[in-house]
Amino acid sequence: PAVDVTPEADVAGLAEFLDSLKWDANGLVAAICQHVDTGELLMQAFADRNAVSETLQTGLATFYSRSRKGRWCKGETSEHYINVLSMHPDCDRDSLIYLSSPIGPACHTGAPTCWFSEAKLGDAGLHEAGGHADRAHAPATTLMVLERTIQQRRSAPVGGKPSWTQRLLADPALACAKVREEAGELCAALEGKEGPERAASEAADLLYHSLVLLNLQGVAVEDVLRVLRQRFGTSGIAEKAARPPNQAPH
Amino acid sequence: PAVDVTPEADVAGLAEFLDSLKWDANGLVAAICQHVDTGELLMQAFADRNAVSETLQTGLATFYSRSRKGRWCKGETSEHYINVLSMHPDCDRDSLIYLSSPIGPACHTGAPTCWFSEAKLGDAGLHEAGGHADRAHAPATTLMVLERTIQQRRSAPVGGKPSWTQRLLADPALACAKVREEAGELCAALEGKEGPERAASEAADLLYHSLVLLNLQGVAVEDVLRVLRQRFGTSGIAEKAARPPNQAPH
Ligand SMILES: [Zn+2]
Ligand SMILES: [Zn+2]
Ligand SMILES: [Zn+2]
Ligand SMILES: [Zn+2]
Ligand SMILES: [Zn+2]
Ligand SMILES: [Zn+2]
Ligand SMILES: [Zn+2]
Ligand SMILES: [Zn+2]
Ligand SMILES: [Zn+2]
Repeated sequence: PAVDVTPEADVAGLAEFLDSLKWDANGLVAAICQHVDTGELLMQAFADRNAVSETLQTGLATFYSRSRKGRWCKGETSEHYINVLSMHPDCDRDSLIYLSSPIGPACHTGAPTCWFSEAKLGDAGLHEAGGHADRAHAPATTLMVLERTIQQRRSAPVGGKPSWTQRLLADPALACAKVREEAGELCAALEGKEGPERAASEAADLLYHSLVLLNLQGVAVEDVLRVLRQRFGTSGIAEKAARPPNQAPH
Repeated sequence: PAVDVTPEADVAGLAEFLDSLKWDANGLVAAICQHVDTGELLMQAFADRNAVSETLQTGLATFYSRSRKGRWCKGETSEHYINVLSMHPDCDRDSLIYLSSPIGPACHTGAPTCWFSEAKLGDAGLHEAGGHADRAHAPATTLMVLERTIQQRRSAPVGGKPSWTQRLLADPALACAKVREEAGELCAALEGKEGPERAASEAADLLYHSLVLLNLQGVAVEDVLRVLRQRFGTSGIAEKAARPPNQAPH
């Protein structure tokens, strides 16, 4: 291999771990890269023993390419490496999550992730929407959908009565007043022992208005999450993964 | 089948969509269930044409069981159904994300998800930690890790100088004062044009202190995200998925 990887027999416990995985008839397990901050699934591929061993040792997502029938370190040609922060086998041990921090787009199409379209069953039948150039139909968690929705309100033409989000976007002073107000209401829920449901609702208010404020300043939720991750430390293969891309093995 | 599913030929566009997927030698694609609110991967299994068609029509995660060689609607025996809100094929069309809202644990072990352990390479070699009864080593996004860390601080014995989180947890008035203060600082970053980095840092402060406040009130981040999702509407197969579990087909 192009990289300096210690043979599995020379790493204590590694052969036993690899033996414990449930390899398919071709000696592969599924490997799914997930973005540690946004939760997005980045890509899915397959890994053989060597790929799992190399990923653990280098902290770079490595697979077995079924088409090229060999080792495949994602990013070796594109420079779009995927740093793997931790590795997690599933209950029946035929699937691994590579919890990841990607460098650049994960998909060969140039899309941030390999999942960018949606199959929807409506009254007119099955319709697929989305493409690699747009994120509108990519699967996204609630927090990311909320951010996307606020951004869409910003771009949408205001026809007739503007939505509440559009009013906030057009009036930063109002947005700031609301953030202060909702923070106060979240505190009041605790101080007044208003109960968990009320607290959850006030936290939702505060989170939504904070996201509007971030949008006004061109800050992505992902940026905030990255700040939190860097403050609260990382785990797993973190030290290697913190290596800058230009020091990645080639 | 036990469920009333329209044959694929009778749904406009469905056969074409199914034809467009890249089925393996056994006529299967990978199907990955992801939690819409937390971003957690719940389980991975395989789906044949009928399973994809049924999932689209019922909004309940359905697979092909390779061991039982037949249809498998998750939850039909356990009642732990997985509501599928939307379905997303990947770039090379051999893998589907079922963006989901699960009813109960997704794993047959009783764990919330099938991924609960971590393989870590340290100085002493390869060590695997975690089990189905604990979430400490499950893959989690930054927001969920932050929540987990705050909870751990709460349970940890205070030996010597308490951490900042422990001081906040012991003093709700301090936690409230900090939430109000950080909300003010986030607004000040906008008002003072302090730039996106400063805004991201203040948003991180506010989010962290808000999470402490939620912990003090027994509110999970997931609860807040669910409130936001219900407010901002759902998409895809949402209407069917909103059906309560006892109305699920048997
Ligand atoms: Zn599995
Ligand atoms: Zn690039
Ligand atoms: Zn791709
Ligand atoms: Zn579109
Ligand atoms: Zn409120
Ligand atoms: Zn694929
Ligand atoms: Zn499981
Ligand atoms: Zn443990
Ligand atoms: Zn601050």
